[in-house]
Amino acid sequence: MSATVHPLPGATRPPSIEPLMQLVAPELNSVNEIILARMQSDVAVIPALAGHLISGGGKRLRPMLTLASARLVGYEGARHHRLSAAVEFIHTATLLHDDVVDGSGQRRGKKAANLIWGNEATVLVGDFLFSRAFELMVEDGSLRVLKILSSASAVIAQGEVDQLQTQRRIDTTEDRYLGVITAKTAVLFAAACQIAGVVAESTEGAIESLEAYGRNLGIAFQLVDDAIDYGGDAETMGKDAGDDFREGKLTLPVILAYKRGDDAARTFWRNAIQEGRTDEEDFARACTYMQDVGAIDDTLQRARHYGSLALDAIADFPAGAAKEALSETVRFAISRAY
Amino acid sequence: MSATVHPLPGATRPPSIEPLMQLVAPELNSVNEIILARMQSDVAVIPALAGHLISGGGKRLRPMLTLASARLVGYEGARHHRLSAAVEFIHTATLLHDDVVDGSGQRRGKKAANLIWGNEATVLVGDFLFSRAFELMVEDGSLRVLKILSSASAVIAQGEVDQLQTQRRIDTTEDRYLGVITAKTAVLFAAACQIAGVVAESTEGAIESLEAYGRNLGIAFQLVDDAIDYGGDAETMGKDAGDDFREGKLTLPVILAYKRGDDAARTFWRNAIQEGRTDEEDFARACTYMQDVGAIDDTLQRARHYGSLALDAIADFPAGAAKEALSETVRFAISRAY
Repeated sequence: MSATVHPLPGATRPPSIEPLMQLVAPELNSVNEIILARMQSDVAVIPALAGHLISGGGKRLRPMLTLASARLVGYEGARHHRLSAAVEFIHTATLLHDDVVDGSGQRRGKKAANLIWGNEATVLVGDFLFSRAFELMVEDGSLRVLKILSSASAVIAQGEVDQLQTQRRIDTTEDRYLGVITAKTAVLFAAACQIAGVVAESTEGAIESLEAYGRNLGIAFQLVDDAIDYGGDAETMGKDAGDDFREGKLTLPVILAYKRGDDAARTFWRNAIQEGRTDEEDFARACTYMQDVGAIDDTLQRARHYGSLALDAIADFPAGAAKEALSETVRFAISRAY
Repeated sequence: MSATVHPLPGATRPPSIEPLMQLVAPELNSVNEIILARMQSDVAVIPALAGHLISGGGKRLRPMLTLASARLVGYEGARHHRLSAAVEFIHTATLLHDDVVDGSGQRRGKKAANLIWGNEATVLVGDFLFSRAFELMVEDGSLRVLKILSSASAVIAQGEVDQLQTQRRIDTTEDRYLGVITAKTAVLFAAACQIAGVVAESTEGAIESLEAYGRNLGIAFQLVDDAIDYGGDAETMGKDAGDDFREGKLTLPVILAYKRGDDAARTFWRNAIQEGRTDEEDFARACTYMQDVGAIDDTLQRARHYGSLALDAIADFPAGAAKEALSETVRFAISRAY
């Protein structure tokens, strides 16, 4: 298994998110200022709780994608700063609600907000950030951006509910799973990129390309995250390896391992996912079953497929720092942690 | 204590919400169609869970206020149908999240959604409805309406968090409490009325008057609800009497009873609210302490004050069925249940 798909000639360093970070660093400061200013409230627990997640450990991946996409299409204004803050607020709101839903103990390497402030405040601060996101969009005034992000938010919520339904259903198909992660993750990546094209008043073709880039990158990121959960370390992923397994989450590695497994393997997976038999010993066995049938390798292979689609989506844009950074981000996404 | 503030000459029936319902009945059917159509989803649990609350027992008070306000300002279009569906979705989303936050067993006389479908799905379906609300507003395309309702949503969430903070603080002031219920309840009533003036392109003065009507009506409604919790019956209120007490909620009757109480009463209230000593016997004692110092009567007196403000806010509008229905709604709000 190769660690990279499109290696640079003579490259010696592994793919990195550094070029993206360097490209957008000055503008990201403006975005961060907006984020910090707009998460304030007279109700002190709101900035405290929101800041726990927003200030701590977040990579600002989605805002960075908006900023880099704007550079890719030659936009020179600043409208997208406020909009990328809105995207980050939507993302943070869904993470806060996820924490309540998942009951996961860690988030970005820190204690989950709901374990510190309780489920109640966590739900409500999520609602607050979500509302603030729409206030920021309304201030910008683009109905098309509002349409993209309100629709994305509805799709995300649907995807989350859908995943809740499949949570302990071992017979979830790969297609259905792809639908869930597209809704849960990829749609907001897509929107983050697409809105840059909208504010830049790019051609419809360019806007579509940005959407496709973000969507495929998002799927690739999620699939690699799913694989890392069965073999990465907590430091790399900002959550504990095995979290998905312990929560009985149907992810692609499990779907493939179950589908390809023999009777013993299938019984094991049913017990684990449907009955919740997921102690440390079970987790070790799960990893072995996955290796036996190549479930992790092939999940990563699927991720590389979507990575290729993302790279092709922006192939027509002119060469330059933005295109290179966005391409390197894809290579980074699909080569992490293994 | 009089049951009504502005009795009709020779009126024999108690004030009722009937005139409002009759005024808007045909248009409310259109709104209901939009609501039912837009809460659909391929994910079956979404319409099931949303429908539990939306189809069951809801009076559609906020949509009715939008419809009646539009009539008051002479609007003849249909844009407000979609927008009042959006208001109802925002309201329903906050109720679903409230159920998770409050842990109350009943809502509108039915089992709360989270007890049937779990906290997780309840949070997420709330998010879905909230997103759908914004989609509906975006379809309408008024940035001013979007601004009013995104701002209202942020204020509601802040008010909910604020209330969570005051939940067991016996020294909450009446002013602070008024801030909480304005944010939690009155701001959405105000927005529901105000947006009718916006789509009708009414004068700024008329739009302000509608806002003031809705806000003061909302405060009056909430104060009477607070009073009923210490003396109404489950059928009238759609939740159990004593719910607020058992959850240690600081409402105005408690604030007044504590402030006016002697040492024994204050010790009782501290034990009840701060320590959670709230069994059936405690509840009976709470009601007695309140009667002793007139806490219920004076909460209702406060409600009548805000009711008067609501009536005065629309005094300049021409007489007619809409004005009569909106006025009667105020009289209904402040004369319920006692």
